[in-house]
Amino acid sequence: MSKGRMEAFSDGVIAILLTIMVLDLKVPHGADLAALRPVLPVFLTYLLSYVFIGIYWNNHHHMLQATARINGRILWANLHLLFWLSLVPFTTGWMGENHFASTPTAVYGVVLLAAAIAYFVLQGRILAAQGPGSPLAAAVGRDLKGKLSPVLYAAAIPLAFFREWLADALYVAVALMWLVPDRRIERRVRE
Amino acid sequence: MSKGRMEAFSDGVIAILLTIMVLDLKVPHGADLAALRPVLPVFLTYLLSYVFIGIYWNNHHHMLQATARINGRILWANLHLLFWLSLVPFTTGWMGENHFASTPTAVYGVVLLAAAIAYFVLQGRILAAQGPGSPLAAAVGRDLKGKLSPVLYAAAIPLAFFREWLADALYVAVALMWLVPDRRIERRVRE
Amino acid sequence: MSKGRMEAFSDGVIAILLTIMVLDLKVPHGADLAALRPVLPVFLTYLLSYVFIGIYWNNHHHMLQATARINGRILWANLHLLFWLSLVPFTTGWMGENHFASTPTAVYGVVLLAAAIAYFVLQGRILAAQGPGSPLAAAVGRDLKGKLSPVLYAAAIPLAFFREWLADALYVAVALMWLVPDRRIERRVRE
Amino acid sequence: MSKGRMEAFSDGVIAILLTIMVLDLKVPHGADLAALRPVLPVFLTYLLSYVFIGIYWNNHHHMLQATARINGRILWANLHLLFWLSLVPFTTGWMGENHFASTPTAVYGVVLLAAAIAYFVLQGRILAAQGPGSPLAAAVGRDLKGKLSPVLYAAAIPLAFFREWLADALYVAVALMWLVPDRRIERRVRE
Repeated sequence: MSKGRMEAFSDGVIAILLTIMVLDLKVPHGADLAALRPVLPVFLTYLLSYVFIGIYWNNHHHMLQATARINGRILWANLHLLFWLSLVPFTTGWMGENHFASTPTAVYGVVLLAAAIAYFVLQGRILAAQGPGSPLAAAVGRDLKGKLSPVLYAAAIPLAFFREWLADALYVAVALMWLVPDRRIERRVRE
Repeated sequence: MSKGRMEAFSDGVIAILLTIMVLDLKVPHGADLAALRPVLPVFLTYLLSYVFIGIYWNNHHHMLQATARINGRILWANLHLLFWLSLVPFTTGWMGENHFASTPTAVYGVVLLAAAIAYFVLQGRILAAQGPGSPLAAAVGRDLKGKLSPVLYAAAIPLAFFREWLADALYVAVALMWLVPDRRIERRVRE
Repeated sequence: MSKGRMEAFSDGVIAILLTIMVLDLKVPHGADLAALRPVLPVFLTYLLSYVFIGIYWNNHHHMLQATARINGRILWANLHLLFWLSLVPFTTGWMGENHFASTPTAVYGVVLLAAAIAYFVLQGRILAAQGPGSPLAAAVGRDLKGKLSPVLYAAAIPLAFFREWLADALYVAVALMWLVPDRRIERRVRE
Repeated sequence: MSKGRMEAFSDGVIAILLTIMVLDLKVPHGADLAALRPVLPVFLTYLLSYVFIGIYWNNHHHMLQATARINGRILWANLHLLFWLSLVPFTTGWMGENHFASTPTAVYGVVLLAAAIAYFVLQGRILAAQGPGSPLAAAVGRDLKGKLSPVLYAAAIPLAFFREWLADALYVAVALMWLVPDRRIERRVRE
């Protein structure tokens, strides 16, 4: 089965997710700069979630670039990943409107953790379909970043109840870690 | 006429439908876990509808994979299917906000039944355009699941007024029945 | 310049327009069938607008199927058409929520008229870029339906203030006239 | 890495941005023409922003038409541009609902300026990836319009606090300047 439509569908869902988070940036009633102040935490969470979803799109793109063909199991693993990503706007809005309170910050981490696991499952199914020795398998390698991220999310969830800012710092750290594009796959594809 | 644009358009509509259902997950005002409790039934209906729309996308994908060319009649049958699917977010929201009351649950089934019939009509038109002996005709075969689903929906509609949970159970049963990807088509295409 | 991206972009915009109209179907507060009654006029206008936008997508698809290449002028003519179509959800919502009052019904016609003219302009620019004797020129022919539609919209606008139901009848008549897919182009492309 | 998916994803995001601005056109409660009057400034800002986003899509299309291949740095530069564009609906809504007050008008300019810079960065990265002597480098040339636009935005931002209408006039001037499609690239590609 060709991968074109799964890519197009994922692009559609991810593009919408990126964009509907903007709908939570409610137009303020005042017309001065002070009116923007209550929007600021919502804006910061939007920025953070934009980067996270951008990272997923980017890695998804790189991974499928190195994928030859797909099957029904991969389609469902992909829908599973998109499901967790689809909850990001909700948790983003909840965290932003409550100015980074503990519970919303922890739930934000739960959804990120679930998305990371779903990405891992998707990657595993694609690797299984490619067989050993595929370019993707070589490119993924030990997959340090992919294994470290869920650990950091899992650490952030309880931390949110004790040192909320530490949980935020962990989220930002994971985002920065991934912002460097995954050159491994680019390099392998080029070879 | 080539099928590429009909696929792309359907992908777009289905991706948006999946995603706007998340907008019904209204960000709660409280910042503790108890604030999530009223969101729970909305979340459960979202999950159910996500799976249903995922199933339609998956089957649509499989069906068009085995389709060579299309015509104007198929375009309209496809728009007809998308129309019924576009009502799913509305009925999902109604059922979720009323915590699975009888009438919304029955109306949910009516829309699922109409979508199932529309899918059946679309499949019929594509089969007619392919001629007998096409790979799709062989792959669809007796189409047991396709014939059983509308029967189960039709049974769930009146049941919603007597044993509401039984209607829900039937919806979940249909979803589970389809979650197994349609290997028939994959197998035929591979051969 | 290749037409692929203009098609994809138009598909995206039209898919979203179709779908955001559903957002005007506000989930009713009651849980019985009577609660659906105020939703009915909104549903009927949604159905009408769905058919109109479906017709535009269908004709757009047919027209571009017979188009070889495009240029910057065509891109803007296409954006111009999409602009008027983007106002359809607004006029649909206004007409639906006011139960087919005169002014909203007339404004609905104004937007449909503008979209019909924009389609005409787009078609003209594509024909100009193809040169005389193109398959599209032959397929369009005298373009009776394309010329009749704006006349009927223009007639419906003043009628809305005297016999509102007649304006509605004209809208429905145009929709039915176009629901028959444009076989002229399909036939020519096949030849 | 092929550019197809980056184009498709950008098309998706831009199509949604164009369309969600329509959601700010709130259906008025009255049913006469007077009820449309408060919608007028929102409509005018929608029109202005539609043209701006249309210009970006158009130029993006032209630029990628002359691009052979992309890399991870270009993907992120593209996501960066889309981020600033994603704020346009918010600033559009704020400016429209406050009837062109000073601060929202200035903030509108800030977002346009940031998007212009992001476009410039994206163009630079693509040019760097193409190497000197590429068709795109020749087509862009001295890029007068690309350099003039940010200057005009930067001028409009302080002006908004003294002569608000002058800032609006500058925005309209930039839009008109770009509405003429970029024939340079079309000409080069044809050669």
